[in-house]
Amino acid sequence: MKTYKVTFLPDNKEVDVEEGTTILHVAEKAEVTINNLCGGEGLCGECRVQIVSGIANPAKHDLGFLTGEEIEKGYLLACQTPVEDNLTVMVPAKSRAEQDKIMMSGSPVVYGEPEKVMVKRQAREKTTSYDALVKKVYLPLPEPTLKDNISDIDRITRELKKTTPYTEFEISLACLQDLADKLRENDWKVTVTTAWHNGIGRILRIEAGDTSHFNYGLAVDVGTTTVVVQLVHLKTGKIVATRGSHNMQARYGEDVISRMVFACSRGGVDPVHKAVIANINTLTRSLVKDCRVDIEDIDCIVAAGNTTMCHFLLNLRPCAIRLEPYVPTTTVYPQILAREVAIEIGKQGILEVVPSVASYVGGDIVAGVLACGMADRPETRCLIDIGTNGEIVIGNSEWLVCCSASAGPAFEGAGAKSGMRATTGAIEKVEIADGKVSYETIGKAKARGICGSGLIDAIYELVRNGIIDQNGKFNTTRHDPLLRTGESDTEYLLVPAAETETGQPITISESEIANLMKSKGAVFAAIKSLTDYVGLSFDQFQDIYVAGGFGSSLNIPKAIAIGLLPDVDTKRVQFIGNSSLTGARMSLMSVASYEKSMQIARRMTNIELSNYPPFMNEFIAALFLPHTDSRLFPSVKYGK
Amino acid sequence: MKTYKVTFLPDNKEVDVEEGTTILHVAEKAEVTINNLCGGEGLCGECRVQIVSGIANPAKHDLGFLTGEEIEKGYLLACQTPVEDNLTVMVPAKSRAEQDKIMMSGSPVVYGEPEKVMVKRQAREKTTSYDALVKKVYLPLPEPTLKDNISDIDRITRELKKTTPYTEFEISLACLQDLADKLRENDWKVTVTTAWHNGIGRILRIEAGDTSHFNYGLAVDVGTTTVVVQLVHLKTGKIVATRGSHNMQARYGEDVISRMVFACSRGGVDPVHKAVIANINTLTRSLVKDCRVDIEDIDCIVAAGNTTMCHFLLNLRPCAIRLEPYVPTTTVYPQILAREVAIEIGKQGILEVVPSVASYVGGDIVAGVLACGMADRPETRCLIDIGTNGEIVIGNSEWLVCCSASAGPAFEGAGAKSGMRATTGAIEKVEIADGKVSYETIGKAKARGICGSGLIDAIYELVRNGIIDQNGKFNTTRHDPLLRTGESDTEYLLVPAAETETGQPITISESEIANLMKSKGAVFAAIKSLTDYVGLSFDQFQDIYVAGGFGSSLNIPKAIAIGLLPDVDTKRVQFIGNSSLTGARMSLMSVASYEKSMQIARRMTNIELSNYPPFMNEFIAALFLPHTDSRLFPSVKYGK
Repeated sequence: MKTYKVTFLPDNKEVDVEEGTTILHVAEKAEVTINNLCGGEGLCGECRVQIVSGIANPAKHDLGFLTGEEIEKGYLLACQTPVEDNLTVMVPAKSRAEQDKIMMSGSPVVYGEPEKVMVKRQAREKTTSYDALVKKVYLPLPEPTLKDNISDIDRITRELKKTTPYTEFEISLACLQDLADKLRENDWKVTVTTAWHNGIGRILRIEAGDTSHFNYGLAVDVGTTTVVVQLVHLKTGKIVATRGSHNMQARYGEDVISRMVFACSRGGVDPVHKAVIANINTLTRSLVKDCRVDIEDIDCIVAAGNTTMCHFLLNLRPCAIRLEPYVPTTTVYPQILAREVAIEIGKQGILEVVPSVASYVGGDIVAGVLACGMADRPETRCLIDIGTNGEIVIGNSEWLVCCSASAGPAFEGAGAKSGMRATTGAIEKVEIADGKVSYETIGKAKARGICGSGLIDAIYELVRNGIIDQNGKFNTTRHDPLLRTGESDTEYLLVPAAETETGQPITISESEIANLMKSKGAVFAAIKSLTDYVGLSFDQFQDIYVAGGFGSSLNIPKAIAIGLLPDVDTKRVQFIGNSSLTGARMSLMSVASYEKSMQIARRMTNIELSNYPPFMNEFIAALFLPHTDSRLFPSVKYGK
Repeated sequence: MKTYKVTFLPDNKEVDVEEGTTILHVAEKAEVTINNLCGGEGLCGECRVQIVSGIANPAKHDLGFLTGEEIEKGYLLACQTPVEDNLTVMVPAKSRAEQDKIMMSGSPVVYGEPEKVMVKRQAREKTTSYDALVKKVYLPLPEPTLKDNISDIDRITRELKKTTPYTEFEISLACLQDLADKLRENDWKVTVTTAWHNGIGRILRIEAGDTSHFNYGLAVDVGTTTVVVQLVHLKTGKIVATRGSHNMQARYGEDVISRMVFACSRGGVDPVHKAVIANINTLTRSLVKDCRVDIEDIDCIVAAGNTTMCHFLLNLRPCAIRLEPYVPTTTVYPQILAREVAIEIGKQGILEVVPSVASYVGGDIVAGVLACGMADRPETRCLIDIGTNGEIVIGNSEWLVCCSASAGPAFEGAGAKSGMRATTGAIEKVEIADGKVSYETIGKAKARGICGSGLIDAIYELVRNGIIDQNGKFNTTRHDPLLRTGESDTEYLLVPAAETETGQPITISESEIANLMKSKGAVFAAIKSLTDYVGLSFDQFQDIYVAGGFGSSLNIPKAIAIGLLPDVDTKRVQFIGNSSLTGARMSLMSVASYEKSMQIARRMTNIELSNYPPFMNEFIAALFLPHTDSRLFPSVKYGK
């Protein structure tokens, strides 16, 4: 069989391979990492590469992933292309495995720790421990005698009552069917896995011997844009590893609404459901492989996401969520076996989904409230989660209200020509001084675009330097050399083509600024409306927590200065990152936290802003930098 | 194709059929009913017929069913034999469909009625109703609005809380997955099926429109000898029909112990499990066909049986039940979907099994206690269930104790040459006067053998007439012409060969009488031991209930006179028949009864007679007619 030489750029790695091997497999051999979410089936479009020299004929070109122009430039899917020539292949930054750059963990918050509990371990010894949703307990049982001949399962539950908080148990038939032999063949020494289920201990499996150390769980953040999976050792509470990827549902629509439209018309829910399951399975496989964990020892997943994402995760039809009166199928999700939705963990492993409040206030927000601890303490606090929707929660241990406003995808990098998600090569910090732009990218890579936190910086810098006015319009009288006429309107050059990875300049146009102002206006109007609704003012919040996938950092003063966040002492504003993941992990690690998430979802009152007339006025008033009512932003001064 | 003429005897029905049709199918065409439990697969051996003229070659002869002698006489399995000649076929009584002769229903007892409850039906209207374990409720729901946009499932449970006793619900993922469409496509009118599950309403299915009338359940008595299935309309509490058949497990052993030996060694549990499932499925199919009920509308089965039968039903290994210290896998059985054990009812239909107390005090006894109501009332009562084991319960609303004694299968017709189960042709009443025997058979058929109640009568009549002495030995000095020397010992001729269906005489031998005396001795010794154990005497029992498959009747005075039952006022002794089935039906019909069965199982204290030294003395003292201590039977006088 013929062999060919394949060289991968920019790493310049060379390898000889047999004819017909796919470029994706060749890359593996060359130890060049190429994104691949769908297992090489041509479904995710993550493995696009550019053929620099040599001839390659892809088996199929998915026009959903590649434009005609890209195909002309030699782009193709590595997984669909066999090697039939000596090749030089450029792996663009976008296709390099990027999981570690996605915002994966919640920043440390005072309350971001699952609760520990007192547990009676042996007769009288008490200890504190993580009281995980799924626990494994080793039980060396006394052998039955004529005086003590209770049933096998009663012998097990009698011991479990001593070492777990449960007083009642339920068990599957499958667990009972081989129990008698298992006990007798293993000298009455078994390890029992139990899950919390409405206060009852659900016995998931019974294993021979002591396997109690092999007790893992997954916390999952099912974001519209990214899916993050965190592997946790439930016995010790240690986070073993975290991995994320782009939500493969993106091929059915960039945002939640377009995916609903797809799922509720031509496409059906099934492919959208399967896409996110594939995400989770791929990430899990990669985690257990690298961490040398047996996938059978993963007994539990806790997932958090917005209400639509949770519907897709469970293959529920989210079609009534989209239209007035915005009704989900459910806001509390049943505990199911993970395999019921084809999630590949231990055979008896369960899936719990953090409950939602309403169609547009999801489990991600409930998890966020849990993570920041605002529902436990008497002082009133505010949580702002900024994504395609901005969700606001105000409350304390007595009450919680929330609302949701459509912010548009501008802060997530969509809708702007140079916009991108917060991954490698995204500009996350911008400064403009003396007519010069300086910036920082995620991963210190060559700039590829600009993400949410970079856009906030950019707008602030533009208005601070007088390049745009407080209406967001370019001051064309300045003759700034970086100002130029773009495709349709005026734009400002942030990074010249020569400096970028793509060879395209990174710019921001007046219409894009208008979009961002609408986004920040919607978020601020929601904060202001909800604060007014509860009869408070911003300075009455003990803390303001900001969550969202902006990147690794968010410049709080600049976010205030453009009028996105309320103008309060910045010491009281904390960026807490992916609080959805933190809350999911807390629920996984602690029954008390899990129960608290249920209470939070029940307690939270959702205010439909579409039903709340003052919101529209607040929105219009917020379409100014920072705000038409300057008294709301006393610390912000622009211009002379 | 050739056709042949087949004549069925004794009905003398004639039919022409094509070559190759099996005799079983021909019988269907001729409207001759032949037993067939396994669906014509040659597995149950119930369809044996005798070829009187013509030549037939059975495709297979199962020697498990037919002896060499029988094969020689022309017996074969109708389902395995194609017609290839003109035939005359004799259908023996044993192979005629006999279901209606099996003891299928509990006799009316004061307490044999499931409890009704107060239910709020509409806003303020209250009514009493059967509160069945599985209920169907029609819900015309208000359409959601912006002011009332709770989730679809919350809309359902909000209404269910008004019309059912439940405050909490659980739902399967499958039910949720098509819920949104089902509601919207059916004008928000649905019928919800809920099952009681640990106090929580388990939503089994949601159907379009009003189907609440189509709500059936099955009560099942899984006896060692017979399986009885009763179809009940849950809405009205009406018993639609009842059907029974021999337990097909008999091919793996006549009694419980031999089936355990089979299942725990060479055979495995699986075939024994599958046999009883086939019984239930066959009976159910025949019931729904004849009663024109859609099998999908059967939402619940409640089964009662002894602990080993329940283990076989659920495919649990009963191997530790058989040996000291007699440990079952479980005594409380999980609520499962019936299809988990391949029982064919509605797809989401559940199976509940009445809980057991211990290895040898099963759910049949718990059901019996429930049926006779003894656990509800302050006066002390006694329940005696006589089968292969004799189980005794003594108690009241304060306390319950029970025990079990191995009685042997003598009263069930096994172990005696002429013994048979209480079905068509069985002698159930015997009188001997002036040296002549008169008798009655079940179904007024030609005598085929003698069942338990007939044997009790026979022994009483033999001792009353001085044919046997009070030790059970024949008085050979009498020169009674009906006394003769049998195969191994002396026997008494009850029915001459000329009068019987089989052409064989029906006799009772001295060793068979000894067996029966051991059986009655064990039962009485158990009653006496348990009564002593609780410090009572027989006359302190308000009532004594006798349950068991003796036939349609049991002659109480004769049963007392042979020393099987205590010598109390016969008005206080009631034969209640199949109380296991009655109790199962009560649990099916009423959550209160179901919960009571759980309490009964928990409350009952099992006394292991093998641990109770006085039992053996009591047993030996009881090997006399009626008893060695005549003071225990003051009303019984034999002889001069």
